[in-house]
Amino acid sequence: MRPAQILLTGFEPFGGESLNPSWEVAQSLHGLKIGGASVVAAQLPCVFGQALTLLDELLQRHQPVLVLALGLAGGRCDLSLERVAINVDDARIADNRGACPVDEPVCADGPAAYFSTLPIKAMVAALRVAGFPASVSQTAGTFVCNHVFYGLQHALRDRPVRSGFMHIPYLPEQAALHPGQPCMPLQTMVDGVKLALEVAWRTEVDLRQSGGAIS
Amino acid sequence: MRPAQILLTGFEPFGGESLNPSWEVAQSLHGLKIGGASVVAAQLPCVFGQALTLLDELLQRHQPVLVLALGLAGGRCDLSLERVAINVDDARIADNRGACPVDEPVCADGPAAYFSTLPIKAMVAALRVAGFPASVSQTAGTFVCNHVFYGLQHALRDRPVRSGFMHIPYLPEQAALHPGQPCMPLQTMVDGVKLALEVAWRTEVDLRQSGGAIS
Amino acid sequence: MRPAQILLTGFEPFGGESLNPSWEVAQSLHGLKIGGASVVAAQLPCVFGQALTLLDELLQRHQPVLVLALGLAGGRCDLSLERVAINVDDARIADNRGACPVDEPVCADGPAAYFSTLPIKAMVAALRVAGFPASVSQTAGTFVCNHVFYGLQHALRDRPVRSGFMHIPYLPEQAALHPGQPCMPLQTMVDGVKLALEVAWRTEVDLRQSGGAIS
Amino acid sequence: MRPAQILLTGFEPFGGESLNPSWEVAQSLHGLKIGGASVVAAQLPCVFGQALTLLDELLQRHQPVLVLALGLAGGRCDLSLERVAINVDDARIADNRGACPVDEPVCADGPAAYFSTLPIKAMVAALRVAGFPASVSQTAGTFVCNHVFYGLQHALRDRPVRSGFMHIPYLPEQAALHPGQPCMPLQTMVDGVKLALEVAWRTEVDLRQSGGAIS
Repeated sequence: MRPAQILLTGFEPFGGESLNPSWEVAQSLHGLKIGGASVVAAQLPCVFGQALTLLDELLQRHQPVLVLALGLAGGRCDLSLERVAINVDDARIADNRGACPVDEPVCADGPAAYFSTLPIKAMVAALRVAGFPASVSQTAGTFVCNHVFYGLQHALRDRPVRSGFMHIPYLPEQAALHPGQPCMPLQTMVDGVKLALEVAWRTEVDLRQSGGAIS
Repeated sequence: MRPAQILLTGFEPFGGESLNPSWEVAQSLHGLKIGGASVVAAQLPCVFGQALTLLDELLQRHQPVLVLALGLAGGRCDLSLERVAINVDDARIADNRGACPVDEPVCADGPAAYFSTLPIKAMVAALRVAGFPASVSQTAGTFVCNHVFYGLQHALRDRPVRSGFMHIPYLPEQAALHPGQPCMPLQTMVDGVKLALEVAWRTEVDLRQSGGAIS
Repeated sequence: MRPAQILLTGFEPFGGESLNPSWEVAQSLHGLKIGGASVVAAQLPCVFGQALTLLDELLQRHQPVLVLALGLAGGRCDLSLERVAINVDDARIADNRGACPVDEPVCADGPAAYFSTLPIKAMVAALRVAGFPASVSQTAGTFVCNHVFYGLQHALRDRPVRSGFMHIPYLPEQAALHPGQPCMPLQTMVDGVKLALEVAWRTEVDLRQSGGAIS
Repeated sequence: MRPAQILLTGFEPFGGESLNPSWEVAQSLHGLKIGGASVVAAQLPCVFGQALTLLDELLQRHQPVLVLALGLAGGRCDLSLERVAINVDDARIADNRGACPVDEPVCADGPAAYFSTLPIKAMVAALRVAGFPASVSQTAGTFVCNHVFYGLQHALRDRPVRSGFMHIPYLPEQAALHPGQPCMPLQTMVDGVKLALEVAWRTEVDLRQSGGAIS
C-alpha cells in the first residue's frame, strides 16, 4: 500500500525575483517522512487560474491527507500562518502571464471566505517554543497566494483533509537587494516548515490561544 | 415623511484611551444632510455582543439606507476602507467588560465572511483626489471592530442597503502619547468621512481599480 | 530700534513634489511676534552649497537672535527635533541642480558634528503636553537638510544664538499620493512650530529628560 | 613575533534578554586568521563607563591593527555599519548597573562626533554582493553602543588603526519572543562579520558609493 501523502506546494519566481523561497523550501522537504506519511513537493505557476488547475490535478493524483501551500511575502519577517482566504482576486502587479484581475471572484459560486483547517495556533506556539519567529496572519492578500489558498480550501471543503497556507520572508540574498526588508535563511525556513508540518500532522484539535489583531 | 437616514457609528474609548476618534468624528457629523438623507450618529460600546445588540436596535429604529461604522486603528496612517469582515472573535486584549474571546464565531450560523457593500474603490479614489490619505484594507482585525463589521453585514445581508466599515488613525493628542505612531486631526477626519459618505451615497456601481495587496 | 529677529527657514520643493510643507509652514508664520521678537521667514533652495550661501546672507542681513530651519522628512510621523548635524554630504537622489555628492564634507575645515543649541527636550515636552506628536531625532540624514543644519551651526558656532533644525511630515495631500506614509495637516504643523519657537525663545537651560535611542 | 591582532568586541546581554548575539558572533570568530592577523574576541559589559575602561585595557594589551565593535539593534533587519559616533549618553533604559545618564558627554573634552574609519561603503557593497543584507546607518543611538563606539574612536584618534561599529539584528530565538521583529541566524551573522572583517582588513581607501539618507 502506498504511504499517505502530504502535499507541500511552493511557487515559481515572480515580480522580477530570480528565485522563490517557497519553492526552495518545498523542494528541500520532498520525500520527508512525517509519521506514516511522505511529503510530496510541487511547484505552482504564479498565474491566476493555471495555479488552481495544477493544484486540482495534484490533489487528484496524490489524494493527500494534509496540504500546506507556501508563498513569499516580501516584507514580512516571520513564518506566518494564514487564518483566512477570501474570494477575491485583486492584483496590484501582473501575474506571470500578464493578467491583472481586479475584484473578480476566485470561484464564482464560492462563499466569501474559507478558514484554514490547519491547527495554526498550535503551529505558531510550537514554532516559537522551538525558536522560530512565527505568527498568525489575518490576511493573505489578494494576489496569487490568496487565490491558491482559497482554491485549495474550496477543493477540499467537503473532505476531512487539513489544509492551509503559510507566508515566508525573503531569503537573505533577496533582502540584500531590497535594503530595509527582513529575511530568513533557507535552512531556518526549511527547519521551521518541517516542524510546522509535524505539528499539523499530529494536532487534531487546535489550541485556544489568542492570535488575533486589534485592527 | 421622515427623510432617509444614514447611520454612522463610532465606538466608546477602549484600551486605556480617554477618547475614541471614531465617536468624535461620528458625533461631529450628526444631523448632516447628504442628498435627501440625514446622518444619525450613534455610539457603540467596545464590548463583544453588546455592541451588536445595540447595532441591531439602531438598524430597527432608523431603517437606514446607508451605514458606515467607524473604528480606531492605532498605528494606521490613513482612512482605511475595510474590504471584508470575518466570522471570528479573537481578542488580544480584553474588551470594556473584560471579555477576551478566542476563536469564537461572531454568528454561530453565519458564513466565514462578508464583503463590504460600500463602493470602497470609488471612496478611496475620491478621497485621494481630494487630498485625503486613504486606502483599501484587507483585514479589519479580529477584535470588536471586525465583530461589529461582521454583525452589520450579517444583519443587512438580505437588504439592499450599502454598509461597511472604515478604520481611522489616532488623533494628534493620542499620538503625542504614543511616540512613533501616525495621526490625523479631527477636522481632517471629519471632512474625509463626510466626503466618503457622499461618495457612498451616490455611487451604485463601484470602480474597477486595483486596491489589492500582494501579501 | 528694529525688533529682534527670529529666522525661520523652509525649503523649496524637491524630489518631484509640487510643494514643500517646510516652506508652507515658515511662510505662514512670517511676521509672527514672539516675546519682543519678530519671525522672518525665508525659503532656501534644495541645492547643496547654494542653500548655505543664501543662509549666510540671511544671517548677515537679519542678525537673528534665534534660528529654526525646517525640512520635510517624508515617512516620519511627527515634529522631530534634530539633535545633531554631521559634516558629510551623501546624496541618494540628486539635489535641484542635479548634484549628487558622496561622502564630501559640508565644511572642509569643520568638526565632525555640531549639536543643536535649541532646548530640544523642552520643545518636545511642551509639544507633547499640548497634544502635538513630537520627538527627538538622532539623525537629520545626509542630504540638503543635514547640510543646511550643519552649515547653520557652523556659522553660529561662536555666537550666543540658539539654532537648530526640525523635520516635519508630509502634508495630507502629499500622503494621498504616497499610500502608507503618515502626514500632518498644515495648520497642525503651523501651530506646533509656533509653540516650538515660543519654547525655544524663552528656554535658556534645556530640560534633563531622556530623548535617546537604544540603537 | 606575535601576529597582528584584530580586536572584535561584543556585549553581554541587556534589557532582559538572556543572550546577546553580538557576543555570540564575536566568540565564534575568536582565533580566526585574516591575512596575517588573528582575531581576538572580547566581551564588554553593558555599562556606561565600565565598558570603556575595559575597552581601553584591551586596546593597550592587544595593540590591535583593526577594531570592530558589535552591538545588538533589536528591530533592525540587517548588518548595519555605523557611520558616526556622537558625544552624548542619553539612556531610555537603565544599563546593567542601573545607570540612566541623560545628555551627558561620553568624553567631557571630546569633539561632538567621530566618523568610523572603517571602509563602510566597501563593506556594505561586498556584503550585498555575497548575499548578506547590509546597509550604512546614520545613527548608532545614544545608549551603550554609541558610547563604546565613541570611546573607541576617541582612543584611537591619533593612531592609524581602522575602527568602527556594526549593529546586528535579533537572533531567531529572540525574535520568536518579540513578534513582528526581524532576525538573522547566528551562522549568517558570523559569516557576514567574517566577510566584513576581511574587507576592512584589505581596503585602505573606501568606495565612493552612496550610502546616505534623505532624512
